[in-house]
Amino acid sequence: MYVVNFNEREVTDVDMAGAKNVTVRWLIGKRTGALNYAMRLFEIAPGGIIPLHNHEEEHEIFVLNGTAKLIGDLEGYAKKDDIVFVPPNEPHGYDNVEGTEIFRFVCVIPLLDKE
Amino acid sequence: MYVVNFNEREVTDVDMAGAKNVTVRWLIGKRTGALNYAMRLFEIAPGGIIPLHNHEEEHEIFVLNGTAKLIGDLEGYAKKDDIVFVPPNEPHGYDNVEGTEIFRFVCVIPLLDKE
Repeated sequence: MYVVNFNEREVTDVDMAGAKNVTVRWLIGKRTGALNYAMRLFEIAPGGIIPLHNHEEEHEIFVLNGTAKLIGDLEGYAKKDDIVFVPPNEPHGYDNVEGTEIFRFVCVIPLLDKE
Repeated sequence: MYVVNFNEREVTDVDMAGAKNVTVRWLIGKRTGALNYAMRLFEIAPGGIIPLHNHEEEHEIFVLNGTAKLIGDLEGYAKKDDIVFVPPNEPHGYDNVEGTEIFRFVCVIPLLDKE
């Protein structure tokens, strides 16, 4: 068992085509004890975006701060204290281009081999 | 895909021997799309406690608000913006008996048959 502040985790830029001003921290990954699923923390700075993309793994998300415009079939916004569920293979993205706050969220994903 | 505020989920008292002033919301459970793991939100009000207990499932936790004293082998506190990882079968609990704020956290657990 351990307790750590999220800021103690290494922060890296997200390497995805079209992504802008996005960072990720692997809060609980394979190297830090995860057994079945990983917990990551993403930040999209004002002016930033995670473009439309999709993958097999589902996402379970909790929004910690800010507001982002949804990209994809579902129109609207995700904001602080919202839950977002993304089923497998559904295209999704988050637009903070016109935002004024950091859009920060926790995103849980089934374990990937890479982490 | 959906987006909902956590307050839209039904809140129920936690039914555990020795638990006091604790509620749970199943944010993403089997009935709401979860495939491999469930996301819940717990609140321990000031004066409340989740007593020492253990189970096979690991916990991946993100603390949203407040501070609680850890119960178990690991001494210390968990507070806002902390990650808590609880491995399988490790006894754990959270004490907010002397706290002044709600201790609120997101807790991800492998899917249980009951939800």
